[in-house]
Amino acid sequence: MFKAIVSADTLESALDSVSVLVDECKINLNEDGLAIRAVDPANVGMVDLSLAADAFESYETDGGIIGVNLARLEEFVGMADSGQLVQLELDEETRKLHIQIEGLEGTLALIDPDSIRQEPDLPDLDLSAEIVVEGRDIDRAVTAADMVSDHIALGVDTDEEVFYVDAEGDTDDVHLTLTREDLISLEAGEARSLFSLDYLKDMDKAIPKDTEVRIELGEEFPVKMHFEIAEGKGKITYMLAPRIQSD
Amino acid sequence: MFKAIVSADTLESALDSVSVLVDECKINLNEDGLAIRAVDPANVGMVDLSLAADAFESYETDGGIIGVNLARLEEFVGMADSGQLVQLELDEETRKLHIQIEGLEGTLALIDPDSIRQEPDLPDLDLSAEIVVEGRDIDRAVTAADMVSDHIALGVDTDEEVFYVDAEGDTDDVHLTLTREDLISLEAGEARSLFSLDYLKDMDKAIPKDTEVRIELGEEFPVKMHFEIAEGKGKITYMLAPRIQSD
Amino acid sequence: MFKAIVSADTLESALDSVSVLVDECKINLNEDGLAIRAVDPANVGMVDLSLAADAFESYETDGGIIGVNLARLEEFVGMADSGQLVQLELDEETRKLHIQIEGLEGTLALIDPDSIRQEPDLPDLDLSAEIVVEGRDIDRAVTAADMVSDHIALGVDTDEEVFYVDAEGDTDDVHLTLTREDLISLEAGEARSLFSLDYLKDMDKAIPKDTEVRIELGEEFPVKMHFEIAEGKGKITYMLAPRIQSD
Repeated sequence: MFKAIVSADTLESALDSVSVLVDECKINLNEDGLAIRAVDPANVGMVDLSLAADAFESYETDGGIIGVNLARLEEFVGMADSGQLVQLELDEETRKLHIQIEGLEGTLALIDPDSIRQEPDLPDLDLSAEIVVEGRDIDRAVTAADMVSDHIALGVDTDEEVFYVDAEGDTDDVHLTLTREDLISLEAGEARSLFSLDYLKDMDKAIPKDTEVRIELGEEFPVKMHFEIAEGKGKITYMLAPRIQSD
Repeated sequence: MFKAIVSADTLESALDSVSVLVDECKINLNEDGLAIRAVDPANVGMVDLSLAADAFESYETDGGIIGVNLARLEEFVGMADSGQLVQLELDEETRKLHIQIEGLEGTLALIDPDSIRQEPDLPDLDLSAEIVVEGRDIDRAVTAADMVSDHIALGVDTDEEVFYVDAEGDTDDVHLTLTREDLISLEAGEARSLFSLDYLKDMDKAIPKDTEVRIELGEEFPVKMHFEIAEGKGKITYMLAPRIQSD
Repeated sequence: MFKAIVSADTLESALDSVSVLVDECKINLNEDGLAIRAVDPANVGMVDLSLAADAFESYETDGGIIGVNLARLEEFVGMADSGQLVQLELDEETRKLHIQIEGLEGTLALIDPDSIRQEPDLPDLDLSAEIVVEGRDIDRAVTAADMVSDHIALGVDTDEEVFYVDAEGDTDDVHLTLTREDLISLEAGEARSLFSLDYLKDMDKAIPKDTEVRIELGEEFPVKMHFEIAEGKGKITYMLAPRIQSD
């Protein structure tokens, strides 16, 4: 059993954060909210989303897992105007999801969860540096790096106490340096890892510009990026595997 | 002889309502205004437009028929800013249309009316239900239906006293229900017909969102949609033939 | 040696005026400012740009010539928000240009100036008519002409004291007439020349709509168009060779 009412804006933000990485996903329906974990087909980028029951206007479930095509579900939810409510209800028999938005009623066929890629484990990692930045700084770094290269290095310089971004192309390069004053916070430990820009660009799309993003970074280790939606009632973590340093 | 001055906005609205269905049309120049009737090449969608003489700043004609390429004429009229006036004048000798917009003068070659598809008759139909809705509700129904299907059923449920829209795809479906309170008016009679969504999407493009649309609907019969432009001085009727119910 | 700080808006306007014609150019660094002259590969359209030292927040050079890929340089400058400053510094050893924008640092490889097309001479011409119009009038003329033709005639009618634009297509044509009242000024001499619309469209893109453009025009002679950016501290001249009159 699953029946919930939620603002279209909250549901869209939640779904967007997953759909930048995968086309289909399993949604875990728990008493205290819903949760999605997914990894892209190449096992490089992962997302872990939780949306607490109190992010919803109303929320009832006795648990379960449903499989959804994200693009189709987002299209349905996109029929709502900003500020409108979306009612979701699972039809256990037909395995379809009923969606209601002010007089509009849709039925969306679900996907057999067993046919969807297995959910990844997001490992606990002991990462040496932790940086908190605004979403817009990640956007700026990614946009700048994209001009010259298809990979990007994120690092912390403990001597200078700065968080930096390096992108080196064949002829041109860019560097972005954020000092302790530019950052919301910096717990400096030696850290530098190289990442594929394509994945970071996808993740950047789903990160609100005016949100705080907590970045955990290590030495040639995966990066974790944590941020919140729905006034803290939704929590998203991205994890991105490093590329081997080529130089 | 034909010579007229009209606001660019009025002329654009009028031409748009026809150009969503056909590329070329005949314009009937009558003393009391101009009129266009056209049907798409597949004989499925028809439009009947009349723009009264008093929708113009000035209007003079001794009658006649001209053939125009709608896209070209719209391009010329589109040179005007919103609020500017467009002057049209027929050159009988060269069979060209002179267009003037604040210092800009254009000459548009006309098309031999005999080379254009014959104008259709829009039959009088005795349709059982009449519904008046806002243009934005038609837009909402068409957009929702388009997510799941390429056809759309419009109907009236006399028991429930509702106007409804159904679209059924292979796996998903949507339903929109508008009660008497949601509607501007409802004269209920049993009615349900299936239509091609492509045509309805084209017609929807030309229907202002904030206008009242009077829909006449029957049982597996064509639908008629009536609305006005230019403060009631322009009247447009669309007629759309039904598709055979496949279920 | 070259080191300068300039508002991103000023630098973008300057570069845009050149990049509509060519992909690469030489920038002449002089004590009193920088200068660019370039001609398109077909030798039809030329640009002459000067940006005075006082258009910069700071400007230092001992002279020299650098070759740049305009699209790359514009992409870097485009990283700045409107109102931000861009710092440029030439690294003589590596022959690279360092660009700094608020914490963001980029390095752009320069091009060997000898590999770039030679700079053209913009000849002194004794043109019979001089017209001053607003940029938006050029835009309007170009847009209208583009509906019907791929070439455009600019002319002055000394009897009527008007500046006119003619475009004749296979079936349709447009004419724009600007009287002495519509113009900022008119020094009438007999003049009419035909031009390729493609070039004029490119130049039009770089001409601000609200700027004064001084047009020098002759009889089957090149046209010159002069306008300013950066509050008069940047001066741009376009010269466009005429097409042979085909009629």
